[in-house]
Amino acid sequence: MSKKKIVILGGGFSGVYTALGLEKHFKPQEASITLVNSENYFVYKPLLPEVISGAVGLTDVVSPIRRLCPRTNLVLRDVENVDLEKQVVTCSRGFKARHLEIEYDYLVLALGAKTLFSIIPGLVEHGLPFGNLADAVALRNRVIRCLAEAEIETDPEAKKKLLTFVIAGGGFSGVEVAALVNDFTRDALKNYSNMSPQAIRVVLVQSGKRILPEVEEGLAVFAQDLLRKRGMEIILGDRLAAASSEKAIFKSGMEIPTRCVVSTVPSTVPDVLEKLDCEKERGRPLTTPHLELSGQEGKVWALGDCAWITLPNGDRVPPTAQHATREGACVADNIAAHAKGGTPRVFDFGGLGKMGSLGHHSAVAEVMGVKLSGFIAWVLWRFVYLSKFPGWDRRVRIGASWFMELLFPPDMVQLSLRSQLGVNEQHLEPGEDVFEEGDLGDSVYIIKDGTCEVTRGKGDSKEVLATLGAGQVFGEMALLADAGRNATVTAAERTNLLVITKPVFDALSSNVPEFGKIFSKVASQRTEENAEG
Amino acid sequence: MSKKKIVILGGGFSGVYTALGLEKHFKPQEASITLVNSENYFVYKPLLPEVISGAVGLTDVVSPIRRLCPRTNLVLRDVENVDLEKQVVTCSRGFKARHLEIEYDYLVLALGAKTLFSIIPGLVEHGLPFGNLADAVALRNRVIRCLAEAEIETDPEAKKKLLTFVIAGGGFSGVEVAALVNDFTRDALKNYSNMSPQAIRVVLVQSGKRILPEVEEGLAVFAQDLLRKRGMEIILGDRLAAASSEKAIFKSGMEIPTRCVVSTVPSTVPDVLEKLDCEKERGRPLTTPHLELSGQEGKVWALGDCAWITLPNGDRVPPTAQHATREGACVADNIAAHAKGGTPRVFDFGGLGKMGSLGHHSAVAEVMGVKLSGFIAWVLWRFVYLSKFPGWDRRVRIGASWFMELLFPPDMVQLSLRSQLGVNEQHLEPGEDVFEEGDLGDSVYIIKDGTCEVTRGKGDSKEVLATLGAGQVFGEMALLADAGRNATVTAAERTNLLVITKPVFDALSSNVPEFGKIFSKVASQRTEENAEG
Repeated sequence: MSKKKIVILGGGFSGVYTALGLEKHFKPQEASITLVNSENYFVYKPLLPEVISGAVGLTDVVSPIRRLCPRTNLVLRDVENVDLEKQVVTCSRGFKARHLEIEYDYLVLALGAKTLFSIIPGLVEHGLPFGNLADAVALRNRVIRCLAEAEIETDPEAKKKLLTFVIAGGGFSGVEVAALVNDFTRDALKNYSNMSPQAIRVVLVQSGKRILPEVEEGLAVFAQDLLRKRGMEIILGDRLAAASSEKAIFKSGMEIPTRCVVSTVPSTVPDVLEKLDCEKERGRPLTTPHLELSGQEGKVWALGDCAWITLPNGDRVPPTAQHATREGACVADNIAAHAKGGTPRVFDFGGLGKMGSLGHHSAVAEVMGVKLSGFIAWVLWRFVYLSKFPGWDRRVRIGASWFMELLFPPDMVQLSLRSQLGVNEQHLEPGEDVFEEGDLGDSVYIIKDGTCEVTRGKGDSKEVLATLGAGQVFGEMALLADAGRNATVTAAERTNLLVITKPVFDALSSNVPEFGKIFSKVASQRTEENAEG
Repeated sequence: MSKKKIVILGGGFSGVYTALGLEKHFKPQEASITLVNSENYFVYKPLLPEVISGAVGLTDVVSPIRRLCPRTNLVLRDVENVDLEKQVVTCSRGFKARHLEIEYDYLVLALGAKTLFSIIPGLVEHGLPFGNLADAVALRNRVIRCLAEAEIETDPEAKKKLLTFVIAGGGFSGVEVAALVNDFTRDALKNYSNMSPQAIRVVLVQSGKRILPEVEEGLAVFAQDLLRKRGMEIILGDRLAAASSEKAIFKSGMEIPTRCVVSTVPSTVPDVLEKLDCEKERGRPLTTPHLELSGQEGKVWALGDCAWITLPNGDRVPPTAQHATREGACVADNIAAHAKGGTPRVFDFGGLGKMGSLGHHSAVAEVMGVKLSGFIAWVLWRFVYLSKFPGWDRRVRIGASWFMELLFPPDMVQLSLRSQLGVNEQHLEPGEDVFEEGDLGDSVYIIKDGTCEVTRGKGDSKEVLATLGAGQVFGEMALLADAGRNATVTAAERTNLLVITKPVFDALSSNVPEFGKIFSKVASQRTEENAEG
C-alpha cells in the first residue's frame, strides 16, 4: 500500500474528530493527514455563548488543533477551491501572494455552516453573526460599548436604543446567547451609577410558535416562562426582515430601535461548497449512508453542518456536536476500510439527548427520554459539556473559571483590537439619517442603490437642497473644509451606501489627484447650485 | 463649597490611582470624578508580556476600571483636544458623529507615552508596538502565524525568515518580551513535526553597551549570559534604522530578514499633549514639585509616563508602575488640599527597587540595595506583582493561571479577530519586490514616494518594462483581468506605497466609474506601450 494523502477541510467537531480517528487507524508511514482551517484552534461551540459573559476565559473555550491532533499537519489557510477532477484543494495566500495547492487521495469536507446574511437587507452591514470566537468577542464588545455609550447619552430615546438588544433565532444557540446577554447586561448595570437594570431590553425573536423547537413543548414553555420572568421579551411567529444601524425591522412591520442585532441562524454552506459541482439537497452536499459524497464514493467524504446526512430511517441528522463527533469517527473508520480493505459502516446514531443553558444556574435537558429543567438540568449540562471537552488542561481551566464565577462578579473587560483603515458599507431604511447638520464630517459616501435627500433646517424652515441617486457621491464638503456637516442627508427609500472614512479618503486623494477631483468637482458644483438657488 | 468637576484623562496606573485617591478624599456631593479612557479596563503592564506565552489569560492581565473605581464616571472615548483657556476637554465621536465636550474645574493629565514609530522608516507599517493589550494579542498572533507559515514553507530562506523575530529595545520591557517570545516559540515548536527549536532565531537589539540599563551591571551581565544560553541573540551598540515587510535594517548596516519586528521603546507623548500649549521638557509637560502643570497651578496636574517629573534632589522620576501609583495618590491629595484648603505635598519617592522577569522561572531584582537573580528573584517578582494587582478576583485568576502553567504546556491559540476591508501602507527597501511574476493579483498600488522598476523574466532574459515614480499606479492589470501578475515590480530606492486591496478596489470602481477609469486608462496605455516596445 502506497502512502495515502488524506486532506480534511475544516477544524470544527467533525473535522477534528475525523483527524483523531485517522491518527488511530493509520501509522505515520501509511498516510499523511492534513487539516486545513483558517484558525489554529477548534472552537468548543456548546460553551461559546459563555464567552459573552466572561464565565469562561476567551481562549479556554477553544483548543489548539495541533495539540489535539499531534500527527496531523495543520495548514492555516482558507479553502478557496476544490477540484474533484484533479483531486486538488486550493488554499488562500499567506505572507506571499501565492495560492497553496494540496493534492489528495482522500478528501473530507467538514467545513461547517455559516449564517446566511445576504437575504435580509442590512444584515451584512449591521447584523452580528454568532458562529466563531471572533463573533463572540465582537458581540461582547458591542454590548459593552452600548452600555458605555448609554451611560453618557443624555437623549432618552437614544439611550433606550443603546440599551436594546435584539437576537433573531429561538433555537438553542439563540436562546443561550439571549439569556447570557440578558444576565450580563443586567448584572453589569449594577456598576453604572445612572442606569437601572430595568432599562435593559433584550428581545428574542422566533419564527415558530415557541422557542427551542429542538425539545419537547413542556421544556420550551418552561424556558419561555423562566426567561420572561428574568425580563427578556420573547416575540413568537415573527422574523427579521431588515436591519439598519438604528433599528431592527420585522416581517410583521414591527420596528425596534437598537444598535445591536444578532442572528444565530446558520443556514448556508461556505462559498467553496456552494460552487462545488455535486449532488445537493437544499444547498448541502448529499452523502451516502457511508458518509461519502454522492458521486465521489471512495474518494470524498462529507459530514457535519455542511453536509446533508440522513439516517437509515430517513431522518435528517441534526447539526449538533454529539452527531458531528460520531460522524467524524465513522468517516475515519470508512476511510481506513477503503484504504486497507474492509467493510465500511453505515452511519446510524439517533442522539443521546438535547440540552441547553438558560443562564443563571438554569437549563433544560431531554436525556434518553427523561426531561429535566432548572438547576438539576444546569448541573447536568455543565457536567456533560465539561467532561466532553477534549483535553485535560481545558477541562481544568474551565472548571476553575466556573468556580471563580461563583466567587466574583462577571467580568466586563472590552477586548477591542485595532482595526485597519476602512471602506465600509451601510444600509439605511427610509427616513433614516446618514448624518445631521452639525455632525462631524468624518466620511464621504457613495450611493450604491437607493435615493437620499439633502435638506437644511428643521420643521417649517426645512428646505430640500437636492435629491441624490445611485452612483452619486456626497459628504465631501465637510471633509474638504474640515468643518461640521452643513446639511442633513436622509434616505428617501431603502438605500445602500459605500462609506469611505476620512483617513482613507485623505490617503487616496492626496496620492491620486484624479480621485480627489471626483469629489472636489462635485463639491464646487454643489456650492454653485446652492448659491444660484 | 460648590461641587467640583474633576476630570482625569487616561486610565493607566497614574490615572486609576488618582481616581482611587479622589474617591477617598471627596464625598459624592463634593465632587464628580470623570475618567476618560479609550478602553474600559486598566492594563497591568508589568504582566502584559505574559500574555504572549498565554501564561496569564488575555483578560486577566487587565482589570475593569468601573469596578476598581466605582464612584468614577468612565467615558469610553479618545481625548482629542484640551482647551486650558475654556477648561474644556473634547472627546472623539461615539455611534453618532458628534464630539463630546467635558468641562472641568480640576484636570489630571495621565495619558501615558506611546512608541515613536515615525522617525524610523517602515516601522509604522511593519513594526509591532508593545504597549497595550491589543499590541500583546497582535504580537502573539503574528508569532503563531509565522510558525504556521514556516511549517508549510518549502523554501529554506523563506522559512528561516519566518522563524526570525527581532525585538528592538533592551530595557525591562524589551527583555521580557524577547524572553517570552524565545521561550514560547521554542516550546511551541515541539508540536510541529518538521521543525526543530534550533531553527528559531530571536534577536534582541540594544543601543547601549549592555541590556537592562535600569539595573546594576552585574545583574545585566547575569541576564545576558542566561538569555544567550537559552539561544537568544543579543546585539549591543546598534539600533534599528528601518523596517520593511521582509527585514530589519540596523544603523551598522546589518540586515536581518524577518517577518516580525517589535519595538518596545515608548518615547513620545500622545498627539493631544503634543499640541498642548504648555511648558515642556523633551516634549513632555513640565510639572511643579506638587505635580501641577507648570503655568496651570491649582487647575491642572500631570503625572505618569506623559509628564516630566523631577524629585527635590533633581533626579527625573522614571516611568514605572511603583512611581505612577504614588504620583496618583499625591495628585489626589493635592487636589483635595486645593479644594478643601490644606497644604499640598511635594512628590518625593525614590523607588523601592527594580525587577524584571527573564522567563522560565528566572528574573533579576534590585530591592532596597539587595541584588537577586535567578529563581529567588523570580519568586519575588511573581509575589510582588501578584500582591500589587488591584482587586482580589484578578489575583486569584492570575494565581490559578500560573499554577496551571506548571501543569500544562503553553497555550497556542491564535486569537485573530475579523478586520475591515482596508487600504494599507507598505514600506520597501531598495531591491525588495512588491510582487513577483505569477503572484496572485489581490491589490493595486499607488507610489507615495520612491521609484519602482517593472521587469519581466529572470537572470539574462530579464527585461525592464518601465520605471514608475511618485503618484503613479500599478498592479491594476492582474486585478482587472483577474489573472496572476504578468511582471515583477521591485523598489529601486526606498519606497512607500499605498496598497488598495481587491475588495476595496472593486467596491470603489464599480460604484464610482471615474475611479475605475484612473486605473483602466493606465492599464490600456501600458498594454499599448508593451505591444509597441
